[in-house]
Amino acid sequence: MSTPERLIDSTRELLWERGYVGTSPKAILERAGAGQGSMYHHFKGKPDLALAAIRRTAEEMRATAEAVLDGPGTPYERIEAYLLRERDVLRGCPIGRLTMDPEVVASSELRAPVDQTLDWLRERLARIVEEGREQGQFAASLDGEEIAAAVLATVQGGYVLARASGSPAAFDTAVRGLLSLLAPHENHDRPA
Amino acid sequence: MSTPERLIDSTRELLWERGYVGTSPKAILERAGAGQGSMYHHFKGKPDLALAAIRRTAEEMRATAEAVLDGPGTPYERIEAYLLRERDVLRGCPIGRLTMDPEVVASSELRAPVDQTLDWLRERLARIVEEGREQGQFAASLDGEEIAAAVLATVQGGYVLARASGSPAAFDTAVRGLLSLLAPHENHDRPA
Repeated sequence: MSTPERLIDSTRELLWERGYVGTSPKAILERAGAGQGSMYHHFKGKPDLALAAIRRTAEEMRATAEAVLDGPGTPYERIEAYLLRERDVLRGCPIGRLTMDPEVVASSELRAPVDQTLDWLRERLARIVEEGREQGQFAASLDGEEIAAAVLATVQGGYVLARASGSPAAFDTAVRGLLSLLAPHENHDRPA
Repeated sequence: MSTPERLIDSTRELLWERGYVGTSPKAILERAGAGQGSMYHHFKGKPDLALAAIRRTAEEMRATAEAVLDGPGTPYERIEAYLLRERDVLRGCPIGRLTMDPEVVASSELRAPVDQTLDWLRERLARIVEEGREQGQFAASLDGEEIAAAVLATVQGGYVLARASGSPAAFDTAVRGLLSLLAPHENHDRPA
């Protein structure tokens, strides 16, 4: 791997583990096995390198989500597949966790790929909910944008619950709760 | 205010803004207007002071939630009131944000008050959901623990969406989505 690639990879890992505030240029160089000169040769500094790293992580997250959301199945099944897809739950979301970082949130440049990725996901989920409404799978009273935001929030908050308890079970419980609320329309009318 | 109180207050603010990893003893002392000696006179060090700060924040959060959850109204109305209660959305949750902190999660002592607070909230919400089921307000097929986890996750994830977009609206959208899914049983059977 080339030096800039090693630098980007190390930054991605450190941002995921420790956040932007907790990641020093020194730690990046040590993990990448690179010298200070090579970092400033390829990048303008920590913000520039972090931006490249965040963009790379965002692209990957989008591709993974897209594969599930564009997969086979009814709208409910695709949302279910998205919620149940295998995740490294205790590591948290490499994109979502950046929102807790004061220096990421304060920088419109660093925040942009985070915002755009979550926004793209929300739009994609909203269209699937609308599809499900049109097919009569979801109640006509539901709003696509609102349900999409609730789905995304449950995933992001599920990470918080899992990391607090030290177990992925809390993530799964929240996801099952949302899925039971979203379960196709008919089910609500039948006594359990 | 006494020096230990000033130190605890400053630590609470800094943990909320910057997290544990991002909070240096120096920054705490500066904000509290205290000298290094006074910190080590009253506390064993940063972890000990952070523990006192986290416990204080957890107690306050619990009291605020309790006031809403034990308030008047049907089970649905109390969950609604909890979800809609006024929050400083863009600041995030002072307890939930600590779960993104590698040093908090790695310390069983610092993680304990975070875990216990979220756990208490989840139990309290689960009992309200069970109440609603018994009264026929929620479908009998819903599981109290699961719905409670979904409610809590939506709040925690709502902060993530709001901070990513730089606007509290994203939090409100997610909450409205969850409430529309949770809205008493009968509504699902009627066409919109």
